[in-house]
Amino acid sequence: MEESAASSVKAVVFDVFGTLVDWRTSLVAQLRGFGQEKGLQADWTALVDAWRSRYQPSLDKVRTGFIPWCVLDELHRASLFSLLPDFGLSALTDQDIDFLVRGWHRLNPWPDVVPGLKKLRQRYIVGPLSNGNLSLMVNLAKFARLPWDVVFGSDLFRHYKPDSETYLGVCDLLRLQPGQVMLGAAHNYDLRAADALGLRTAFLPRPSEFGPNQTTDLQPESAWTIVAKDIEDLAIQMGA
Amino acid sequence: MEESAASSVKAVVFDVFGTLVDWRTSLVAQLRGFGQEKGLQADWTALVDAWRSRYQPSLDKVRTGFIPWCVLDELHRASLFSLLPDFGLSALTDQDIDFLVRGWHRLNPWPDVVPGLKKLRQRYIVGPLSNGNLSLMVNLAKFARLPWDVVFGSDLFRHYKPDSETYLGVCDLLRLQPGQVMLGAAHNYDLRAADALGLRTAFLPRPSEFGPNQTTDLQPESAWTIVAKDIEDLAIQMGA
Repeated sequence: MEESAASSVKAVVFDVFGTLVDWRTSLVAQLRGFGQEKGLQADWTALVDAWRSRYQPSLDKVRTGFIPWCVLDELHRASLFSLLPDFGLSALTDQDIDFLVRGWHRLNPWPDVVPGLKKLRQRYIVGPLSNGNLSLMVNLAKFARLPWDVVFGSDLFRHYKPDSETYLGVCDLLRLQPGQVMLGAAHNYDLRAADALGLRTAFLPRPSEFGPNQTTDLQPESAWTIVAKDIEDLAIQMGA
Repeated sequence: MEESAASSVKAVVFDVFGTLVDWRTSLVAQLRGFGQEKGLQADWTALVDAWRSRYQPSLDKVRTGFIPWCVLDELHRASLFSLLPDFGLSALTDQDIDFLVRGWHRLNPWPDVVPGLKKLRQRYIVGPLSNGNLSLMVNLAKFARLPWDVVFGSDLFRHYKPDSETYLGVCDLLRLQPGQVMLGAAHNYDLRAADALGLRTAFLPRPSEFGPNQTTDLQPESAWTIVAKDIEDLAIQMGA
Protein backbone atom coordinates (compact mmCIF):
# COMPACT_ATOMS: atom_id res chain seq x y z
CA MET A 1 0.00 0.00 0.00
CA GLU A 2 1.27 3.44 -0.89
CA GLU A 3 0.48 5.22 2.35
CA SER A 4 0.29 8.65 0.82
CA ALA A 5 -1.87 7.67 -2.15
CA ALA A 6 -4.45 5.77 -0.10
CA SER A 7 -4.63 8.10 2.88
CA SER A 8 -6.64 10.77 1.06
CA VAL A 9 -9.35 8.32 0.00
CA LYS A 10 -12.91 9.14 1.15
CA ALA A 11 -14.92 6.74 -1.00
CA VAL A 12 -14.30 3.21 -2.25
CA VAL A 13 -16.46 2.16 -5.19
CA PHE A 14 -16.49 -1.29 -6.72
CA ASP A 15 -16.90 -3.05 -9.95
CA VAL A 16 -19.73 -5.50 -9.26
CA PHE A 17 -20.01 -8.39 -11.75
CA GLY A 18 -17.11 -10.65 -10.94
CA THR A 19 -15.57 -8.41 -8.30
CA LEU A 20 -18.39 -8.53 -5.74
CA VAL A 21 -20.78 -11.16 -7.04
CA ASP A 22 -20.18 -14.60 -8.56
CA TRP A 23 -22.38 -14.21 -11.62
CA ARG A 24 -21.31 -17.44 -13.31
CA THR A 25 -22.09 -19.92 -10.53
CA SER A 26 -25.24 -18.01 -9.62
CA LEU A 27 -26.62 -17.92 -13.16
CA VAL A 28 -25.77 -21.54 -13.94
CA ALA A 29 -27.69 -22.59 -10.81
CA GLN A 30 -30.62 -20.39 -11.75
CA LEU A 31 -30.79 -21.66 -15.33
CA ARG A 32 -30.50 -25.26 -14.22
CA GLY A 33 -33.35 -24.72 -11.76
CA PHE A 34 -35.41 -23.06 -14.47
CA GLY A 35 -34.75 -25.99 -16.83
CA GLN A 36 -35.81 -28.54 -14.24
CA GLU A 37 -38.98 -26.62 -13.47
CA LYS A 38 -39.88 -26.29 -17.16
CA GLY A 39 -38.65 -29.77 -18.18
CA LEU A 40 -36.06 -28.30 -20.55
CA GLN A 41 -32.63 -29.74 -21.35
CA ALA A 42 -29.68 -27.59 -22.40
CA ASP A 43 -26.01 -27.06 -21.66
CA TRP A 44 -26.71 -24.34 -19.11
CA THR A 45 -23.07 -23.66 -18.28
CA ALA A 46 -22.27 -23.15 -21.95
CA LEU A 47 -25.28 -20.86 -22.28
CA VAL A 48 -24.10 -18.70 -19.37
CA ASP A 49 -20.58 -18.51 -20.80
CA ALA A 50 -21.91 -17.63 -24.24
CA TRP A 51 -24.24 -15.03 -22.71
CA ARG A 52 -21.38 -13.39 -20.87
CA SER A 53 -19.18 -13.48 -23.97
CA ARG A 54 -21.71 -11.18 -25.62
CA TYR A 55 -21.36 -8.67 -22.78
CA GLN A 56 -18.33 -6.66 -23.87
CA PRO A 57 -19.32 -6.58 -27.57
CA SER A 58 -22.81 -5.34 -26.60
CA LEU A 59 -21.34 -2.54 -24.44
CA ASP A 60 -19.00 -1.63 -27.28
CA LYS A 61 -21.95 -1.20 -29.63
CA VAL A 62 -23.26 1.50 -27.28
CA ARG A 63 -19.83 2.97 -26.56
CA THR A 64 -19.05 3.43 -30.24
CA GLY A 65 -22.49 4.86 -31.04
CA PHE A 66 -23.43 1.88 -33.23
CA ILE A 67 -26.67 1.63 -31.23
CA PRO A 68 -28.23 4.35 -29.06
CA TRP A 69 -27.96 4.32 -25.28
CA CYS A 70 -29.80 1.48 -23.60
CA VAL A 71 -29.48 -0.01 -20.13
CA LEU A 72 -27.69 -3.25 -19.33
CA ASP A 73 -30.96 -5.09 -18.65
CA GLU A 74 -31.89 -4.49 -22.29
CA LEU A 75 -28.47 -5.53 -23.59
CA HIS A 76 -28.67 -8.70 -21.49
CA ARG A 77 -32.08 -9.43 -22.98
CA ALA A 78 -30.98 -8.93 -26.58
CA SER A 79 -27.87 -11.09 -26.06
CA LEU A 80 -29.86 -13.93 -24.51
CA PHE A 81 -32.56 -13.75 -27.16
CA SER A 82 -30.01 -14.11 -29.94
CA LEU A 83 -28.48 -17.20 -28.29
CA LEU A 84 -31.65 -19.19 -27.61
CA PRO A 85 -31.89 -20.95 -31.02
CA ASP A 86 -28.33 -22.32 -30.68
CA PHE A 87 -29.31 -23.91 -27.37
CA GLY A 88 -32.61 -25.40 -28.53
CA LEU A 89 -34.58 -22.86 -26.51
CA SER A 90 -36.46 -20.97 -29.21
CA ALA A 91 -39.79 -21.77 -27.57
CA LEU A 92 -39.18 -19.67 -24.44
CA THR A 93 -41.89 -17.08 -23.81
CA ASP A 94 -41.29 -13.37 -23.22
CA GLN A 95 -42.09 -14.00 -19.58
CA ASP A 96 -39.47 -16.76 -19.39
CA ILE A 97 -36.87 -14.48 -20.96
CA ASP A 98 -37.73 -11.64 -18.58
CA PHE A 99 -37.30 -14.03 -15.66
CA LEU A 100 -33.88 -15.16 -16.88
CA VAL A 101 -32.70 -11.60 -17.58
CA ARG A 102 -33.74 -10.68 -14.04
CA GLY A 103 -31.39 -13.42 -12.92
CA TRP A 104 -28.67 -10.74 -13.09
CA HIS A 105 -30.51 -9.05 -10.19
CA ARG A 106 -30.16 -12.21 -8.06
CA LEU A 107 -26.45 -13.03 -7.86
CA ASN A 108 -24.60 -14.30 -4.81
CA PRO A 109 -21.71 -12.32 -3.35
CA TRP A 110 -18.31 -13.92 -2.80
CA PRO A 111 -18.04 -14.87 0.90
CA ASP A 112 -15.70 -11.99 1.86
CA VAL A 113 -17.87 -9.26 0.34
CA VAL A 114 -20.55 -8.52 2.92
CA PRO A 115 -18.22 -8.61 5.96
CA GLY A 116 -15.55 -6.67 4.04
CA LEU A 117 -17.93 -3.94 2.88
CA LYS A 118 -19.36 -3.61 6.40
CA LYS A 119 -15.88 -2.93 7.73
CA LEU A 120 -14.93 -0.54 4.94
CA ARG A 121 -18.16 1.35 5.40
CA GLN A 122 -17.23 2.32 8.94
CA ARG A 123 -14.56 4.60 7.54
CA TYR A 124 -15.39 5.20 3.86
CA ILE A 125 -18.32 5.87 1.59
CA VAL A 126 -18.94 2.56 -0.17
CA GLY A 127 -20.89 1.84 -3.34
CA PRO A 128 -20.87 0.27 -6.81
CA LEU A 129 -19.31 1.67 -9.98
CA SER A 130 -20.78 -0.84 -12.38
CA ASN A 131 -22.04 -1.09 -15.91
CA GLY A 132 -25.35 -2.25 -14.45
CA ASN A 133 -28.26 0.17 -14.45
CA LEU A 134 -29.23 1.73 -11.14
CA SER A 135 -32.36 -0.39 -10.67
CA LEU A 136 -30.36 -3.57 -11.30
CA MET A 137 -27.85 -2.48 -8.66
CA VAL A 138 -30.60 -1.64 -6.16
CA ASN A 139 -32.28 -5.02 -6.64
CA LEU A 140 -28.97 -6.85 -6.49
CA ALA A 141 -28.02 -5.08 -3.28
CA LYS A 142 -31.32 -6.06 -1.67
CA PHE A 143 -30.89 -9.67 -2.80
CA ALA A 144 -27.23 -10.01 -1.79
CA ARG A 145 -27.53 -7.68 1.23
CA LEU A 146 -24.71 -5.46 0.02
CA PRO A 147 -24.35 -2.64 2.57
CA TRP A 148 -23.87 0.31 0.24
CA ASP A 149 -23.98 3.98 1.20
CA VAL A 150 -24.78 5.07 -2.33
CA VAL A 151 -25.76 3.38 -5.58
CA PHE A 152 -24.39 4.47 -8.92
CA GLY A 153 -25.57 2.97 -12.19
CA SER A 154 -24.34 3.47 -15.74
CA ASP A 155 -27.69 5.07 -16.62
CA LEU A 156 -26.78 8.06 -14.44
CA PHE A 157 -24.06 8.84 -16.96
CA ARG A 158 -25.45 7.13 -20.06
CA HIS A 159 -22.00 5.70 -20.58
CA TYR A 160 -20.35 2.36 -20.00
CA LYS A 161 -16.95 1.71 -18.49
CA PRO A 162 -14.23 2.27 -19.47
CA ASP A 163 -15.63 5.60 -20.73
CA SER A 164 -14.25 8.38 -18.54
CA GLU A 165 -17.75 9.79 -17.95
CA THR A 166 -18.49 6.93 -15.53
CA TYR A 167 -15.43 7.31 -13.27
CA LEU A 168 -15.45 11.10 -13.32
CA GLY A 169 -19.23 11.18 -12.99
CA VAL A 170 -19.00 9.30 -9.71
CA CYS A 171 -16.33 11.69 -8.40
CA ASP A 172 -18.44 14.67 -9.45
CA LEU A 173 -21.61 13.40 -7.76
CA LEU A 174 -19.67 12.64 -4.58
CA ARG A 175 -18.12 16.14 -4.82
CA LEU A 176 -14.70 14.52 -4.38
CA GLN A 177 -11.49 14.82 -6.33
CA PRO A 178 -10.44 11.72 -8.31
CA GLY A 179 -7.60 11.18 -5.84
CA GLN A 180 -10.17 10.87 -3.04
CA VAL A 181 -11.98 8.00 -4.76
CA MET A 182 -10.74 4.42 -5.05
CA LEU A 183 -11.99 1.83 -7.52
CA GLY A 184 -11.87 -1.78 -6.37
CA ALA A 185 -11.99 -4.27 -9.24
CA ALA A 186 -10.96 -7.75 -10.32
CA HIS A 187 -10.22 -6.52 -13.86
CA ASN A 188 -7.05 -4.74 -14.85
CA TYR A 189 -8.67 -2.89 -17.79
CA ASP A 190 -11.09 -1.21 -15.40
CA LEU A 191 -8.33 -0.13 -13.01
CA ARG A 192 -6.24 1.10 -15.93
CA ALA A 193 -9.02 3.48 -17.00
CA ALA A 194 -9.61 4.70 -13.44
CA ASP A 195 -5.90 5.18 -12.81
CA ALA A 196 -5.48 7.25 -15.97
CA LEU A 197 -8.09 9.68 -14.60
CA GLY A 198 -6.41 10.02 -11.21
CA LEU A 199 -8.52 7.65 -9.13
CA ARG A 200 -6.89 5.32 -6.63
CA THR A 201 -7.00 1.63 -7.51
CA ALA A 202 -7.34 -1.68 -5.67
CA PHE A 203 -6.95 -5.02 -7.44
CA LEU A 204 -8.76 -8.02 -5.98
CA PRO A 205 -8.23 -11.21 -7.97
CA ARG A 206 -11.21 -13.45 -8.63
CA PRO A 207 -9.43 -16.37 -10.31
CA SER A 208 -12.58 -18.48 -10.74
CA GLU A 209 -14.91 -15.74 -11.99
CA PHE A 210 -14.91 -17.24 -15.47
CA GLY A 211 -14.69 -20.83 -14.29
CA PRO A 212 -11.87 -23.29 -13.65
CA ASN A 213 -9.93 -22.48 -16.83
CA GLN A 214 -9.64 -18.72 -16.38
CA THR A 215 -6.44 -17.28 -17.79
CA THR A 216 -7.05 -13.53 -17.50
CA ASP A 217 -6.76 -11.12 -14.58
CA LEU A 218 -5.03 -13.64 -12.35
CA GLN A 219 -2.42 -11.03 -11.43
CA PRO A 220 -2.16 -7.27 -11.12
CA GLU A 221 -0.79 -5.87 -14.39
CA SER A 222 0.37 -2.55 -13.01
CA ALA A 223 1.43 -0.93 -9.74
CA TRP A 224 -2.09 -0.40 -8.42
CA THR A 225 -2.45 1.57 -5.19
CA ILE A 226 -3.39 -1.61 -3.35
CA VAL A 227 -3.39 -5.30 -4.20
CA ALA A 228 -5.60 -7.24 -1.81
CA LYS A 229 -6.59 -10.88 -1.44
CA ASP A 230 -10.26 -9.92 -1.12
CA ILE A 231 -12.52 -7.21 0.31
CA GLU A 232 -11.82 -8.13 3.93
CA ASP A 233 -8.10 -7.84 3.24
CA LEU A 234 -8.72 -4.51 1.49
CA ALA A 235 -10.57 -3.24 4.58
CA ILE A 236 -7.62 -4.20 6.76
CA GLN A 237 -5.11 -2.57 4.42
CA MET A 238 -7.27 0.57 4.30
CA GLY A 239 -7.35 0.77 8.10
CA ALA A 240 -11.10 0.27 8.35
CA MET B 1 -55.60 3.72 3.03
CA GLU B 2 -56.86 3.05 -0.46
CA GLU B 3 -56.01 -0.63 -0.74
CA SER B 4 -55.88 -0.66 -4.52
CA ALA B 5 -53.75 2.48 -4.92
CA ALA B 6 -51.13 1.44 -2.37
CA SER B 7 -50.91 -2.26 -3.23
CA SER B 8 -48.97 -1.69 -6.46
CA VAL B 9 -46.24 0.33 -4.70
CA LYS B 10 -42.68 -1.04 -5.03
CA ALA B 11 -40.68 1.95 -3.79
CA VAL B 12 -41.28 4.57 -1.09
CA VAL B 13 -39.16 7.71 -1.42
CA PHE B 14 -39.12 10.53 1.06
CA ASP B 15 -38.73 14.22 1.30
CA VAL B 16 -35.87 14.63 3.78
CA PHE B 17 -35.59 18.12 5.34
CA GLY B 18 -38.47 18.31 7.78
CA THR B 19 -39.98 14.94 6.88
CA LEU B 20 -37.11 12.70 8.01
CA VAL B 21 -34.74 15.04 9.83
CA ASP B 22 -35.33 17.84 12.30
CA TRP B 23 -33.16 20.46 10.62
CA ARG B 24 -34.22 23.36 12.87
CA THR B 25 -33.38 21.90 16.29
CA SER B 26 -30.23 20.28 14.89
CA LEU B 27 -28.91 23.48 13.29
CA VAL B 28 -29.74 25.71 16.27
CA ALA B 29 -27.76 23.34 18.51
CA GLN B 30 -24.85 23.29 16.07
CA LEU B 31 -24.74 27.08 15.71
CA ARG B 32 -24.98 27.56 19.45
CA GLY B 33 -22.08 25.15 19.95
CA PHE B 34 -20.10 26.92 17.27
CA GLY B 35 -20.76 30.29 18.94
CA GLN B 36 -19.63 29.01 22.34
CA GLU B 37 -16.48 27.56 20.88
CA LYS B 38 -15.65 30.77 19.02
CA GLY B 39 -16.84 33.14 21.75
CA LEU B 40 -19.49 34.65 19.45
CA GLN B 41 -22.91 35.96 20.47
CA ALA B 42 -25.89 35.98 18.14
CA ASP B 43 -29.55 35.04 18.01
CA TRP B 44 -28.81 31.60 16.60
CA THR B 45 -32.46 30.52 16.40
CA ALA B 46 -33.32 33.63 14.40
CA LEU B 47 -30.34 32.99 12.13
CA VAL B 48 -31.50 29.42 11.42
CA ASP B 49 -35.03 30.61 10.70
CA ALA B 50 -33.76 33.38 8.43
CA TRP B 51 -31.44 30.92 6.69
CA ARG B 52 -34.28 28.51 6.01
CA SER B 53 -36.53 31.35 4.84
CA ARG B 54 -34.06 31.91 2.00
CA TYR B 55 -34.39 28.26 0.94
CA GLN B 56 -37.46 28.38 -1.30
CA PRO B 57 -36.51 31.70 -2.93
CA SER B 58 -33.03 30.34 -3.71
CA LEU B 59 -34.50 27.22 -5.32
CA ASP B 60 -36.86 29.36 -7.30
CA LYS B 61 -33.97 31.35 -8.74
CA VAL B 62 -32.64 28.11 -10.21
CA ARG B 63 -36.05 26.78 -11.19
CA THR B 64 -36.90 29.92 -13.15
CA GLY B 65 -33.50 30.09 -14.83
CA PHE B 66 -32.55 33.34 -13.07
CA ILE B 67 -29.28 31.66 -12.05
CA PRO B 68 -27.73 28.53 -13.62
CA TRP B 69 -27.91 25.12 -11.99
CA CYS B 70 -26.06 24.83 -8.72
CA VAL B 71 -26.31 22.29 -5.92
CA LEU B 72 -28.07 22.91 -2.61
CA ASP B 73 -24.77 23.10 -0.71
CA GLU B 74 -23.89 26.15 -2.80
CA LEU B 75 -27.32 27.75 -2.35
CA HIS B 76 -27.06 27.18 1.41
CA ARG B 77 -23.67 28.87 1.39
CA ALA B 78 -24.83 31.90 -0.56
CA SER B 79 -27.89 32.33 1.67
CA LEU B 80 -25.87 32.14 4.86
CA PHE B 81 -23.22 34.48 3.54
CA SER B 82 -25.80 37.14 2.74
CA LEU B 83 -27.28 36.92 6.25
CA LEU B 84 -24.08 37.17 8.28
CA PRO B 85 -23.88 41.00 8.46
CA ASP B 86 -27.42 41.23 9.90
CA PHE B 87 -26.37 38.92 12.72
CA GLY B 88 -23.09 40.63 13.52
CA LEU B 89 -21.10 37.75 12.04
CA SER B 90 -19.28 39.43 9.16
CA ALA B 91 -15.92 38.32 10.53
CA LEU B 92 -16.49 34.60 9.95
CA THR B 93 -13.81 32.94 7.83
CA ASP B 94 -14.43 30.84 4.72
CA GLN B 95 -13.57 27.81 6.80
CA ASP B 96 -16.17 28.78 9.43
CA ILE B 97 -18.80 29.21 6.75
CA ASP B 98 -17.94 25.86 5.15
CA PHE B 99 -18.29 24.21 8.55
CA LEU B 100 -21.72 25.76 9.12
CA VAL B 101 -22.94 24.90 5.63
CA ARG B 102 -21.85 21.31 6.25
CA GLY B 103 -24.17 21.42 9.25
CA TRP B 104 -26.92 20.42 6.79
CA HIS B 105 -25.05 17.10 6.45
CA ARG B 106 -25.34 16.49 10.21
CA LEU B 107 -29.03 16.61 11.08
CA ASN B 108 -30.83 14.36 13.54
CA PRO B 109 -33.72 12.18 12.41
CA TRP B 110 -37.09 12.32 14.14
CA PRO B 111 -37.32 9.35 16.55
CA ASP B 112 -39.69 7.26 14.39
CA VAL B 113 -37.55 7.50 11.25
CA VAL B 114 -34.84 4.86 11.62
CA PRO B 115 -37.13 2.12 13.01
CA GLY B 116 -39.83 3.03 10.50
CA LEU B 117 -37.51 2.95 7.49
CA LYS B 118 -36.03 -0.38 8.64
CA LYS B 119 -39.51 -1.89 8.65
CA LEU B 120 -40.51 -0.38 5.32
CA ARG B 121 -37.28 -1.57 3.75
CA GLN B 122 -38.17 -5.20 4.37
CA ARG B 123 -40.89 -4.92 1.75
CA TYR B 124 -40.10 -1.82 -0.35
CA ILE B 125 -37.22 -0.01 -1.97
CA VAL B 126 -36.60 3.00 0.30
CA GLY B 127 -34.69 6.20 -0.42
CA PRO B 128 -34.73 10.01 -0.45
CA LEU B 129 -36.37 12.28 -3.02
CA SER B 130 -34.90 15.52 -1.79
CA ASN B 131 -33.68 18.85 -3.06
CA GLY B 132 -30.35 18.06 -1.44
CA ASN B 133 -27.47 17.04 -3.67
CA LEU B 134 -26.47 13.40 -3.71
CA SER B 135 -23.31 13.90 -1.64
CA LEU B 136 -25.27 15.79 1.01
CA MET B 137 -27.77 12.89 1.18
CA VAL B 138 -24.98 10.31 1.41
CA ASN B 139 -23.27 12.18 4.25
CA LEU B 140 -26.57 12.78 6.03
CA ALA B 141 -27.49 9.11 5.78
CA LYS B 142 -24.17 8.09 7.29
CA PHE B 143 -24.57 10.63 10.10
CA ALA B 144 -28.21 9.83 10.90
CA ARG B 145 -27.89 6.11 10.04
CA LEU B 146 -30.75 6.26 7.56
CA PRO B 147 -31.09 2.75 6.09
CA TRP B 148 -31.63 3.61 2.44
CA ASP B 149 -31.54 1.20 -0.50
CA VAL B 150 -30.82 3.95 -2.98
CA VAL B 151 -29.86 7.62 -2.82
CA PHE B 152 -31.31 10.19 -5.20
CA GLY B 153 -30.16 13.79 -5.23
CA SER B 154 -31.42 16.79 -7.16
CA ASP B 155 -28.11 16.95 -9.03
CA LEU B 156 -29.03 13.70 -10.81
CA PHE B 157 -31.79 15.65 -12.53
CA ARG B 158 -30.42 19.19 -12.30
CA HIS B 159 -33.87 20.24 -11.18
CA TYR B 160 -35.47 21.11 -7.87
CA LYS B 161 -38.84 19.98 -6.60
CA PRO B 162 -41.59 20.60 -7.47
CA ASP B 163 -40.23 20.36 -11.04
CA SER B 164 -41.62 17.20 -12.63
CA GLU B 165 -38.13 16.08 -13.73
CA THR B 166 -37.33 15.11 -10.13
CA TYR B 167 -40.35 12.87 -9.47
CA LEU B 168 -40.38 11.31 -12.94
CA GLY B 169 -36.59 11.01 -12.95
CA VAL B 170 -36.75 8.84 -9.84
CA CYS B 171 -39.43 6.61 -11.42
CA ASP B 172 -37.36 6.33 -14.59
CA LEU B 173 -34.14 5.36 -12.79
CA LEU B 174 -36.03 2.78 -10.74
CA ARG B 175 -37.62 1.53 -13.99
CA LEU B 176 -41.01 1.75 -12.28
CA GLN B 177 -44.28 3.36 -13.32
CA PRO B 178 -45.30 6.45 -11.31
CA GLY B 179 -48.11 4.42 -9.74
CA GLN B 180 -45.52 2.03 -8.32
CA VAL B 181 -43.69 4.82 -6.47
CA MET B 182 -44.91 6.57 -3.32
CA LEU B 183 -43.66 9.92 -2.03
CA GLY B 184 -43.72 10.39 1.73
CA ALA B 185 -43.62 14.05 2.78
CA ALA B 186 -44.64 16.48 5.50
CA HIS B 187 -45.44 19.16 2.91
CA ASN B 188 -48.64 19.29 0.92
CA TYR B 189 -47.08 21.21 -2.02
CA ASP B 190 -44.65 18.34 -2.58
CA LEU B 191 -47.38 15.69 -2.50
CA ARG B 192 -49.52 17.81 -4.82
CA ALA B 193 -46.78 17.81 -7.47
CA ALA B 194 -46.15 14.06 -7.10
CA ASP B 195 -49.86 13.25 -7.21
CA ALA B 196 -50.34 15.25 -10.41
CA LEU B 197 -47.74 13.01 -12.08
CA GLY B 198 -49.38 9.77 -10.94
CA LEU B 199 -47.21 8.90 -7.95
CA ARG B 200 -48.78 7.60 -4.74
CA THR B 201 -48.65 9.94 -1.77
CA ALA B 202 -48.24 9.67 2.00
CA PHE B 203 -48.63 12.67 4.29
CA LEU B 204 -46.75 12.62 7.60
CA PRO B 205 -47.29 15.77 9.67
CA ARG B 206 -44.30 17.34 11.38
CA PRO B 207 -46.07 20.07 13.34
CA SER B 208 -42.91 21.39 15.01
CA GLU B 209 -40.62 21.37 11.98
CA PHE B 210 -40.66 25.19 11.88
CA GLY B 211 -40.82 25.62 15.65
CA PRO B 212 -43.61 26.05 18.19
CA ASN B 213 -45.60 28.57 16.15
CA GLN B 214 -45.92 26.58 12.93
CA THR B 215 -49.18 27.23 11.08
CA THR B 216 -48.60 25.38 7.78
CA ASP B 217 -48.88 21.72 6.83
CA LEU B 218 -50.53 20.73 10.08
CA GLN B 219 -53.16 18.77 8.14
CA PRO B 220 -53.45 16.93 4.84
CA GLU B 221 -54.88 19.30 2.25
CA SER B 222 -56.07 16.63 -0.18
CA ALA B 223 -57.10 12.98 -0.26
CA TRP B 224 -53.56 11.58 -0.24
CA THR B 225 -53.15 7.81 -0.68
CA ILE B 226 -52.16 7.49 2.97
CA VAL B 227 -52.15 9.82 5.96
CA ALA B 228 -49.88 8.48 8.70
CA LYS B 229 -48.82 9.70 12.13
CA ASP B 230 -45.16 9.03 11.34
CA ILE B 231 -42.91 6.60 9.45
CA GLU B 232 -43.55 3.72 11.82
CA ASP B 233 -47.28 4.18 11.32
CA LEU B 234 -46.73 4.36 7.56
CA ALA B 235 -44.84 1.05 7.66
CA ILE B 236 -47.76 -0.55 9.50
CA GLN B 237 -50.31 0.87 7.08
CA MET B 238 -48.19 -0.34 4.15
CA GLY B 239 -48.08 -3.86 5.57
CA ALA B 240 -44.33 -3.85 6.08
